[in-house]
Amino acid sequence: MTEHATVPLRLRGMGAFHVGGRDVELSGLPVREHLMAEGGQPVRIDPNGRYVVEQMYAQYFLADPDAGRLPLLLWHGGGMTGATWETTPDGRPGWLHEFLRRGRDVYLCDAVERGRSGFAPVPHVWPEAPVIQTPADIFTRFRIGTRDPATGALCPFPDTQFPVAAFDALARQMVPRWTTTDAAVLAGYLALLERTGPAVIVCHSQAGVFALRAAHARPDLVRAVIALEPASIPMLDTATRAYDVPTLVVLGDHIDTDARWPRMADRIRTFANAHAAVDILSLPDIGMHGNSHMLMMDRNSLAIAGRVSDWLIHKGV
Amino acid sequence: MTEHATVPLRLRGMGAFHVGGRDVELSGLPVREHLMAEGGQPVRIDPNGRYVVEQMYAQYFLADPDAGRLPLLLWHGGGMTGATWETTPDGRPGWLHEFLRRGRDVYLCDAVERGRSGFAPVPHVWPEAPVIQTPADIFTRFRIGTRDPATGALCPFPDTQFPVAAFDALARQMVPRWTTTDAAVLAGYLALLERTGPAVIVCHSQAGVFALRAAHARPDLVRAVIALEPASIPMLDTATRAYDVPTLVVLGDHIDTDARWPRMADRIRTFANAHAAVDILSLPDIGMHGNSHMLMMDRNSLAIAGRVSDWLIHKGV
Repeated sequence: MTEHATVPLRLRGMGAFHVGGRDVELSGLPVREHLMAEGGQPVRIDPNGRYVVEQMYAQYFLADPDAGRLPLLLWHGGGMTGATWETTPDGRPGWLHEFLRRGRDVYLCDAVERGRSGFAPVPHVWPEAPVIQTPADIFTRFRIGTRDPATGALCPFPDTQFPVAAFDALARQMVPRWTTTDAAVLAGYLALLERTGPAVIVCHSQAGVFALRAAHARPDLVRAVIALEPASIPMLDTATRAYDVPTLVVLGDHIDTDARWPRMADRIRTFANAHAAVDILSLPDIGMHGNSHMLMMDRNSLAIAGRVSDWLIHKGV
Repeated sequence: MTEHATVPLRLRGMGAFHVGGRDVELSGLPVREHLMAEGGQPVRIDPNGRYVVEQMYAQYFLADPDAGRLPLLLWHGGGMTGATWETTPDGRPGWLHEFLRRGRDVYLCDAVERGRSGFAPVPHVWPEAPVIQTPADIFTRFRIGTRDPATGALCPFPDTQFPVAAFDALARQMVPRWTTTDAAVLAGYLALLERTGPAVIVCHSQAGVFALRAAHARPDLVRAVIALEPASIPMLDTATRAYDVPTLVVLGDHIDTDARWPRMADRIRTFANAHAAVDILSLPDIGMHGNSHMLMMDRNSLAIAGRVSDWLIHKGV
């Protein structure tokens, strides 16, 4: 076996579960014969009936020794799964391992629609097919580098922190995604919080919307938010209830190289200026250059995790 | 937090990776604008280009203390993911935890098409939509009980070992499945074996076909097979090469209550009779009654794991 033994660790326990979901009833669908296994017996499947859909999956890892702090819920971004937080593309420990090493219990989540959470039948329950993105698209969109418009060659930024030689491993992690499942995804995450009790959310990209909504709705359960390059700031009804959950937004480098990120960064700064609870950690401003969108995978990912850990301790969570 | 602390354990390390996959080139697809996050900037996505598809995901857990025996690769069945082997529906430790406790390294796998392995675009790469099955269908097909044809009521067998009160947790684990991906799934599993080196495969249901094919093709890598209720025995070219990988097929109870299982059990017995390397453990024959198709989830799942462990040690693997 060639596995790197990563970091030896002890756990008080580990396990997994599904939460949430809702019942749907399908009818009017044709009954069909399927051969479910080579050489097996044909199976007559009647797809009509009651299903549960939009449940979500989480694995939990209980640290030993236990630092006695709140657990972390790791919420991946668009087109990804919980694997985001595991071994990096170039084989280093991920944030899952690092925060366990620091004595935090960690919930590694697959959002509704992703990974071990499965997905609802299309088009019967979810009307549209999922969206796919090429690895080349990801290379530029995640600000790892540029693409030569003439040749299509992918050119990393000279100072990129992303482990470019292992880019194909990132490409292999990408999965299809839907764009119309936000309500179901948020419902799943809220069901998870009901089960875990008070926790810290560490979210990435697309999950920023879910984390901020969850925090605003349930400040009793969401005691802090670490938002790694949130793809957007949702419209929150802060007239009715203030946003006062301690929140750290972490931003990488090369923001100006992408069509969208400057506006998203502005929106983030507007949000931070409007709410005292929100801090921004802009990595280039503290001398950490070259970070891509994938802060948990970049070569300095554990140094960033250390900054995040310090901020959380400083906030008393 | 309400998690049961399952079993405290130590690990030499843990991690995850993707293996396998192949490149495909898509062309002629329309470019579209998508709103990828609420309140975010619209994104123009050109889906044409090179993709990697049919990769598979595995998590590895390295036991401490290490019993010095071959690692186990856990291969789930149809409509399921690696979660099969984790915490049981009623919150008990799963086979993942049990075999780590026994000092075996374990690879928890999501087959190609499932879980964190993702799935290829439909219909561009895989031509058909996946298949779905109702929980009611699963209840009878997995031989947990019967369904009253008049009322639809689900009635467990009086002696069922399945934790019926937690059946909804099993229903939440089920995910869509394809029926035309066998070649890709097997290729992914072979790529995994190339990476892990010599190992023992523990497979369930649909995965029986992949395990027996892999064992027949690569007896250097597959040193034993534990086949829990394999859904089928594939046609192997045993004229060219004998099937001589030590194999234990484990069968549960109530075989005669299902339309398919008696024939599948006959086929299994024919296979065992033809190959000295193949043993059958029929649980009712050793006084373990009431087991369903889900031997790793039934209430006596750890006793069954113990029998499997003993057999492996007896076989020297």
